[in-house]
Amino acid sequence: MTDREAWQQDVVARVRKLQKALQEQEIEGALLVQSADIFYYTGTFQNGHLYLPVEGEPIYLVRRSVERARATTLCGRVVKLQSFRQIPALLQEHGFKLPRTLGLELDILPVSYFLQYQKLFPHTQFRDVSPIIRRQRAVKSAYELELLRESGRRLDQMLAAVPGLVELGETEVALAGRLEGEARRLGHQGLVRFRGFNPDFFMGHFLTGPSAAEPSYFDGPVSGPGLDPSFAFGPSWRRLAENEPIYVDYAFAWRGYVTDATRVYVVGRLKPELERAHQVALEIQQALLEEIRPGKSPASLYELACRMSEKAGLKEYFQGWQQPVRFIGHGVGLELNDLPVLAPGVEEPLEAGMVIAIEPKFVFPGEGAVGIENTVVVTPSGARRLTNYPDAVQILSGRN
Amino acid sequence: MTDREAWQQDVVARVRKLQKALQEQEIEGALLVQSADIFYYTGTFQNGHLYLPVEGEPIYLVRRSVERARATTLCGRVVKLQSFRQIPALLQEHGFKLPRTLGLELDILPVSYFLQYQKLFPHTQFRDVSPIIRRQRAVKSAYELELLRESGRRLDQMLAAVPGLVELGETEVALAGRLEGEARRLGHQGLVRFRGFNPDFFMGHFLTGPSAAEPSYFDGPVSGPGLDPSFAFGPSWRRLAENEPIYVDYAFAWRGYVTDATRVYVVGRLKPELERAHQVALEIQQALLEEIRPGKSPASLYELACRMSEKAGLKEYFQGWQQPVRFIGHGVGLELNDLPVLAPGVEEPLEAGMVIAIEPKFVFPGEGAVGIENTVVVTPSGARRLTNYPDAVQILSGRN
Repeated sequence: MTDREAWQQDVVARVRKLQKALQEQEIEGALLVQSADIFYYTGTFQNGHLYLPVEGEPIYLVRRSVERARATTLCGRVVKLQSFRQIPALLQEHGFKLPRTLGLELDILPVSYFLQYQKLFPHTQFRDVSPIIRRQRAVKSAYELELLRESGRRLDQMLAAVPGLVELGETEVALAGRLEGEARRLGHQGLVRFRGFNPDFFMGHFLTGPSAAEPSYFDGPVSGPGLDPSFAFGPSWRRLAENEPIYVDYAFAWRGYVTDATRVYVVGRLKPELERAHQVALEIQQALLEEIRPGKSPASLYELACRMSEKAGLKEYFQGWQQPVRFIGHGVGLELNDLPVLAPGVEEPLEAGMVIAIEPKFVFPGEGAVGIENTVVVTPSGARRLTNYPDAVQILSGRN
Repeated sequence: MTDREAWQQDVVARVRKLQKALQEQEIEGALLVQSADIFYYTGTFQNGHLYLPVEGEPIYLVRRSVERARATTLCGRVVKLQSFRQIPALLQEHGFKLPRTLGLELDILPVSYFLQYQKLFPHTQFRDVSPIIRRQRAVKSAYELELLRESGRRLDQMLAAVPGLVELGETEVALAGRLEGEARRLGHQGLVRFRGFNPDFFMGHFLTGPSAAEPSYFDGPVSGPGLDPSFAFGPSWRRLAENEPIYVDYAFAWRGYVTDATRVYVVGRLKPELERAHQVALEIQQALLEEIRPGKSPASLYELACRMSEKAGLKEYFQGWQQPVRFIGHGVGLELNDLPVLAPGVEEPLEAGMVIAIEPKFVFPGEGAVGIENTVVVTPSGARRLTNYPDAVQILSGRN
């Protein structure tokens, strides 16, 4: 079996699985527009609407490029679409009855699209299929895990490049650029997909000292000041000095698949309290890795991490300063914010094949952030790491 | 007047202008969520909803970071928001009646938000204010033009860096990474905002030879193959060879403001037909620059460019191969796809203060793309360029 055939089997199996879920919920079809979802069910993404009937072959209504969609789609027929108005007629032409219940990705679908669908399908009831799709996407196939392992290996190489590019006195944003450039050389696709409608995210953070303690809109323990208020995220104009934490948190996107890791480096030496907090983060990570297995409740992992940070006397710095995030890990895959979230109240148990970034971190105002993040896969026998660059604080010379 | 005061006056004037437009359309308020729009009317962006009443001060309902929003907002009050449900009560607490007509950004607002707003404002009629906002944002203030000029200067520096980083035999994606790293050093914020719900765009294209002729979903004359079908955009693994066009099209984002330019470089020499097509693109650009002025119809500029490409015998290669885009330029500003579009049917006349990327290009299957793109501002006396790196094909040594 060739690589392409294996990938194709995978894509077809995903479609069948979604069809089964649609059937159980009495939904007659799904009309998808999100690039990550369309890629998941076709193996490609071009500009179009993917109609997935509850049974039979999907039909991919493509505006452009039809040619490219035809050459790369692994499941379903590609049909040229000139305008929204043609959608119902094209479905009927290809042998489908218009669905009485139609699934849409209501978490990200723009209202303008929805209003058009309502006109085009006047007798149809709309249902949100995003939760079904996101739950399915949370459990990765063997083929997807291969891609994620490769993504993790390349993220390791990216982290290993940091010592060679750090230079005292250089700006955060220039250092970020060097690392991002290296990531591209390693095959980082650039775009990191993030589910939501304000895509105010960029690849990751390269932050020095107090920059990592700056609060922001971003739903993570650390965000960074950014260059100015128009995009208050990531590196700033601050220049790297000795003896402060260099906080490097990046996502790698390899053939669509995202892994996520964080490491701390320093030119010189960290203050003892930061060193100790980093050590506590490593202990929390170790405890979580030992607990992770199919059947485990995500909430219990969050609580374990909270208890350990409290016991270490570091509660007020845990997962952010003043406005901590209330999770200790998040799924990754085609999007940086795949399911599951390891957070309070999330009781749906972990399953084998889920891929999660675990990130215990401590943020100290005026000082910066320390901690660790690694991407792991849940296997029947426990967590297995996909990112393996050394966890310890890395001591650098600061001479590029 | 300090810089911050000038910027603040600008932001306040924008709010007043939107309020006037809301009044004319009998809309009692607008509730905005898009980061570019929120930045435009507050001078900052954090995670929240901006309520802009038809008169009086706006109120920015912020989930996180409230602290950071307070420190940076230039217009309106910042109020902490815990959940969607509080929105009506918070508006009333701050002296507003619940609006009978409420403007939303229906082009990008997710349905999930809309359904919540419908519950929270059961007696309210919703209206799409995106067209009003986009039309207002199309005309830049003196202060915004300063930022765009600086953005253009930095984009020039980025283009000037290309000769120093090009290396024969290197992959497109590695070369793209070098250039993107340099862009960051120059203060590129990373994120380039693009209005739409699938943010499948990354900074720009660094393409060699035939890569630039690959069709894709992307709504531009050139897209690039990308590394694989998961994100079929931009550079690939192809390696740079002699005598082929190096097509460099990047957006620079400086303090939120985007400029856009394209240049062609070559190690060695282009084929005569490509050289000639590049020359025709420069002539079309020149003709357009001479025609651009307030009052001009965008459609007429598109038609002029079509006529010139046809007269030169290059019609079938103009603005893309097989699936050409039907525009010759697009607005830029807080988003890469600001208004106006210079396209057939667009008759609303140009105004002084509009900023437009003009991009006549020719795409040859199996060969690549040539052409030019520059960002210009419409002034009362005609077009003025914001990007000024030399337009001619740049001959490089190929030894980095």
